[in-house]
Amino acid sequence: MSELPAALEEAVAFDAQGLVCAVAQQHDSGEVLMVAWMNREALAETVASGQVCYWSRSRGKLWRKGESSGQTQRLVQLYVDCDGDTLLLRVEQTGVACHTGRRACFFRRLAEDGSLEEVLPVITDPGDLYGAKS
Amino acid sequence: MSELPAALEEAVAFDAQGLVCAVAQQHDSGEVLMVAWMNREALAETVASGQVCYWSRSRGKLWRKGESSGQTQRLVQLYVDCDGDTLLLRVEQTGVACHTGRRACFFRRLAEDGSLEEVLPVITDPGDLYGAKS
Repeated sequence: MSELPAALEEAVAFDAQGLVCAVAQQHDSGEVLMVAWMNREALAETVASGQVCYWSRSRGKLWRKGESSGQTQRLVQLYVDCDGDTLLLRVEQTGVACHTGRRACFFRRLAEDGSLEEVLPVITDPGDLYGAKS
Repeated sequence: MSELPAALEEAVAFDAQGLVCAVAQQHDSGEVLMVAWMNREALAETVASGQVCYWSRSRGKLWRKGESSGQTQRLVQLYVDCDGDTLLLRVEQTGVACHTGRRACFFRRLAEDGSLEEVLPVITDPGDLYGAKS
């Protein structure tokens, strides 16, 4: 298991569940791709490997982004916010960040009439992403 | 109290504390400014007024961004992520988003040597922001 750099150990304020919020942003275009959570181990592995690893709250285990889908995130730069409870990951996203097959998870936009409109297309069939093809 | 548009009522998955995570991004430059939380009332007010209002977890009350500091956020576009537990607010930030007087809260960047370096300058004296001047 990787060690967390001392500066991060000091700066990051993990919550009562041992988690810190992480925003992933495509480093060159500025697209906000997704938001997920990291525990100490996921953060340490991310920093050590340069490949983003989250903590899946629903599955209760490390979530090496792209491990099943191939849609990895390479860490370019990591930032800590003022109170240490959120990280900003500037990443190089391979393919799509969202499990729906869209580039980013923020694909529903509030319209003037109060409805939500889908503004990002499905680029990759989710069945292809997760090997559910027959 | 403002009503939440029905589409948001349906799409947003407030957590057990009644909160949803919100990422604020400067709409034109793409800077990720800050991450905070909203409850149903804060979200409804934000949508109705066009001025971003969060829920302050530490103070346990609505946090009309810029109310004391003047550093308001005008809502330009609002996005909901795939599972409804995070919002992306594309905003027009007046002045600085961070209470430290920096443009954004993500001003500490992990350096190659494992230290954190400050990469954003203090633009506005926090004492000026919060009226602490003598």
